[in-house]
Order: sequence, then structure tokens, then C-alpha cells
Amino acid sequence: MSGSLNFDTTSRPVQAILDEQLEQVSLIFERQLASDMSAVNKLCMHVESYRGKMLRPSLVLLSGLASTGGGIATTLTEKHRIVAAVTEMIHMATLVHDDVLDEADVRRRGATVNHLWGNETAVILGDYLISNAFHLCSTAGDPDINLALGQVTNTLCEGELVQLHHRNDFSISESTYFEIVRRKTASLIAECCRLGALLSGADAKVCLAMKRFGEAMGVAFQIQDDLLDLVGDQAVVGKSLGKDLDKGKLTLPVIYHLAESDQAARGIALGMIMDRDAAGLRQRLLVSGAVERTSGTAQRLVEQGKAELPQLPSGPARELLGVMADQVISRVR
Amino acid sequence: MSGSLNFDTTSRPVQAILDEQLEQVSLIFERQLASDMSAVNKLCMHVESYRGKMLRPSLVLLSGLASTGGGIATTLTEKHRIVAAVTEMIHMATLVHDDVLDEADVRRRGATVNHLWGNETAVILGDYLISNAFHLCSTAGDPDINLALGQVTNTLCEGELVQLHHRNDFSISESTYFEIVRRKTASLIAECCRLGALLSGADAKVCLAMKRFGEAMGVAFQIQDDLLDLVGDQAVVGKSLGKDLDKGKLTLPVIYHLAESDQAARGIALGMIMDRDAAGLRQRLLVSGAVERTSGTAQRLVEQGKAELPQLPSGPARELLGVMADQVISRVR
Repeated sequence: MSGSLNFDTTSRPVQAILDEQLEQVSLIFERQLASDMSAVNKLCMHVESYRGKMLRPSLVLLSGLASTGGGIATTLTEKHRIVAAVTEMIHMATLVHDDVLDEADVRRRGATVNHLWGNETAVILGDYLISNAFHLCSTAGDPDINLALGQVTNTLCEGELVQLHHRNDFSISESTYFEIVRRKTASLIAECCRLGALLSGADAKVCLAMKRFGEAMGVAFQIQDDLLDLVGDQAVVGKSLGKDLDKGKLTLPVIYHLAESDQAARGIALGMIMDRDAAGLRQRLLVSGAVERTSGTAQRLVEQGKAELPQLPSGPARELLGVMADQVISRVR
Repeated sequence: MSGSLNFDTTSRPVQAILDEQLEQVSLIFERQLASDMSAVNKLCMHVESYRGKMLRPSLVLLSGLASTGGGIATTLTEKHRIVAAVTEMIHMATLVHDDVLDEADVRRRGATVNHLWGNETAVILGDYLISNAFHLCSTAGDPDINLALGQVTNTLCEGELVQLHHRNDFSISESTYFEIVRRKTASLIAECCRLGALLSGADAKVCLAMKRFGEAMGVAFQIQDDLLDLVGDQAVVGKSLGKDLDKGKLTLPVIYHLAESDQAARGIALGMIMDRDAAGLRQRLLVSGAVERTSGTAQRLVEQGKAELPQLPSGPARELLGVMADQVISRVR
């Protein structure tokens, strides 16, 4: 396929290969969003400043590299790079719409689209990103990829809708929380890993292992995100915090705290939730051990995900996937 | 292909064939939106009550029937029906998000999603519909269809973004208005007609004629919609009216009125626009002839669209396309 690269991952550090590939993914991303309408371009350029960690594209590429072994000549194709750009575009769309839902003003230390241009523009710009993601995906000419990513975005939206349905549900169960998180966050991350492997020609066993790795990592990622929203430092995290409490979204630390409190402590915590008293609640969660228990759950999920990796051939790309999984829970932003 | 029908359109009235096919399209639509999450199903069932005229699916099917001639045995395939359902789902998504943008409470005489469940749920439900539209589209297994409809939804969103960019722009030009309308409304209607013909194996000349027919009809449709928003009767139209003025959207009747008024009359009209004085403005537009001129423009576009039809084989499906084009401007809702 034109534009595909052949390289031996043993001959160059895998991080350098990844960086070079991500550069190409960025070009695909920017080319896709170039419009003949200047008003549209201005908005897209703003959204491109949100791109930071490139977690999802990195997982597509690394899964592609890792699943066929780090020691042999490995091919990343244009399809890998297109899928990588598509997953980032889907993620961007969710960020733009999430900021509308959360009435957030700050994202990656910059102003959000809704803050700068209003909710209406943010709604349609998010739609534009979703539409472009699917259009870009279609340029790969592979209906299976469209079908797989369409299924994932269906699942992702279902997770968001169920989460909205449970706003101000102060008796939301742990299992409902996990169902929401699996759908709204882990489904896309899992598919990044699975598709990366699939496009490298990995067998069904390896594809399934990568999907499981991504799902566990994705759930851990969201748990850490929810934890940071409650106990993080906005100056460090770089986005509006305390939004979950503001919006009546009960996340894992709060669910743990309520489940383990006696009646009196439960009453106090529920009062703080209803009063949106973030500082008070934070203190309670730290003292009760709910924060620590939440971190422990995320840690266990990361270990569970990493336990899938030995099913891949050993090599530097597989190692880097393990490092990325660890970073999910060590990150403070 | 399984599920495809062979019938001779001369043997049965084309309206009966269309109705039967639309039934199947509805089943595809409902099957696609069936979720394992009950909270999601409840929302989708509400949205299904918005389906009324089924204009876009009808155009896909009729274009398919008409482009190969009404007098010979004609095949509508499962791909026609899938594309028909996809175009309706895309349209539904735009309605749900438009109602958020317009803060509309009423749609098809029922409450809007945003009115019943809030803007946040309406935003994500719209996303869910877009995602399902693309997923359903992918089940046709034809990357060209995905690419074509992805391009159309990109264009559609660009039209909406440019429209938002021109809110409260009291000197918006006629050409900008037409550019917005071509993108946000006519692009999808044109593609319905083109794809219907293409999937029936029509040649490039007929596909282009159908696209032009759809584009002219689509622009006329939006002009009529904008006219009804200003001078229609809410009890008849069945949705919130006067929203364009409320939102600072200047549409064709107003653009004509401002262009043709002397300085004093312009000043009065601009004052009414800024005061959101719908009743006063309506009166001015009627008296100045701007309403009549707008109707004339829509009428001419319908004639221009119908002038493409003789490039199709004559027959009852072609005739019905002509009737549908006429209905666009005679409709009062």
C-alpha cells in the first residue's frame, strides 16, 4: 500500500518510530479537517490545540507494532494511520460535546469552544468532528473498520446516555458505574488496541488479548479521571475540575464511600453531595479510605490488562504498551 | 440480494410500492436503534414519533424506481432501503440538535427531547443517531456509500457552522444565504436522489440530473421552511415558529426586504429585527412584497429542478417525483 512503511523495530527505538508515525497521523487529521469555509477552519484549528497525549492513536500504532513482534520486520500501513487519526477525531468530538454538557470553561489550559463561541457552535462543531471521523474512516475503503468503529461510537453514546439518566441518582450501584465507564471510555480504547493488531494481521487470540488489555486500561483511565476530578489540582490537571459533583454524577470514590459508611456518615456525605460541597467531600473521601480504595481498583485493572501482554511476542513495542498502562494511573493530569 | 424485490411498476400504482418499501425502511430504522439499555430505548422511541413525511427515504426509493424507467421491471435493493433509513436517521439527528440550538419546545405537535430531558440528553441522543446512521450505512458493505454520505454530513455541518457564524449579521448577503441553505439542507436531499439512481444502476448523466433535481428541490424546501417560520401558523405547522428571528438568523424574505427598502424602511425593519418583533416584521414583509418574491424564488427553483426530470425515462415514479417537488412549496407545514 502506498505510504506504508517497513521498518525493523529492533533497529530503532520504538519511541522514535511512534513519534514519526504520530506526525503522519497529525497530518492526516489536519488534512481531513481543512474546509473551504474559513469560519469552519478557525474552529478546527482551535480544537487541534486540545490534542495532547494522543493516547488513542498511540495505542493503534503500538498495538500494530507489538502484535506481530518487536524483533521482526513490522509493517504499519496507511490503514493504521487512518484509524489512528479517526480515533483521535472521535475522542475530540466527545471532548467538545462533554464540555457543553459539563459547562466547562477550560480544556488543556485553554478556553473551551462553548466558552469562546457558545454551546450552539460547540454542538455543531462536535457533529462536524464525528462526521469527519466517519468520512475519514471511509477513505480506508474497508467496510469492516467502519462497522467496528460505528459499533463503538454507538456504545460510547449509550454509556453517556445512561450516565445522564443516572444524574442525581444517589444510590447508583458500582455495577452501573462500571457499565457506564466500560461503554463511554473503555470501548473506544479497547477497539484502538484490537484494530491496531487486526490491521497488522494478528490472529484472533492476539486481537482478543489486545481488546482485553485496552478495555482494562480504559476503565482504569476513566477511574483515574474521575478521581482527579474530585481530588486533583486544577492548575496541574489543566481543565475545569469538580464538574462531576456539580452535575450530580456520582463516581467510584463516592460510591465506595457511601457503601462503606455508617448511616450517620452517609447522611453527612449525601448532604455534601446535595450542597455540591467539593472541599468537604474531598476531605471525607480521603479520611475514609475511599480515595485509596479507588486507586487500588484502578491499579488492579492495570495489572489485569498487562497480564494479557504475554500473549504478544516480546519486544520493545509490547514493553511500551505496559509502560503506557502504568502511566494511566500514575498520571496527575 | 436477499430481501430485494422485483416488481413491475406498471402493474401496481407507484404510491403503493413506495408505501410498502417505506414500511420496510421503518423496520430497518427501528431495528438499528434497538439498544440493550432501556433508558436509551425510551429516548429513541420518542424520536421515532418525529418521523412524518419521510421525504428523504421517499426520494431515495423513488429516484431508484424512476431512474431505470417506470415501465420496465425495476429492482429496489436492500441497499436502497438501508440508504433510505440512513438518510432519515441523519435528518432526525439534525432535528434533535437543531431543537437544542433553537431552544425549541415543540416538534410535530409533541415536546422536543431538550424540553423533556434537557439539552445534555438531546446533544448525546443526536450523537447517538449520527453514530447509528453511520453504523447502519456500514452494514451495506459498500465503502462508496459511506464516503458519499460522510461527505454530505461534513457539508451539512459546515452549512450549520457558517449559519451560526452569521447570527446577528444584519448585512448577510443573498449569496451567503444560498451557500448555507445548499450545504445544510440541499446537500442531503440531492444525495438521496443521486444515490437512489446510482444504486439502481443509472448512468452518470441520470445520476447528475437527479442530483441537480434534489439540490434545487432542497433549496426550495428550506426557503419554504424559512418562510413558514416567519409567516406560518404554529397550530398548522406543528413546531415552534419565529425561531429564526429569535436567534438572529436572517432568512431570504428578510434579506429581500432589506435589499429593496429605502433607508427609512430599512431602519424600521432593522429595529424590528433587533427587538425580535415578529408580528411587526411579518406585516412589513407581506406589504413590501418580500414574502411574494421569496415564494417566487422557491417556485422557480422547483421548476428548475423539474426541468431535469425529462432526462429520466418517463413513467409513474418520475411523475411522482414531480408531484413531490411541487408539494415542497405548496405545503403549509
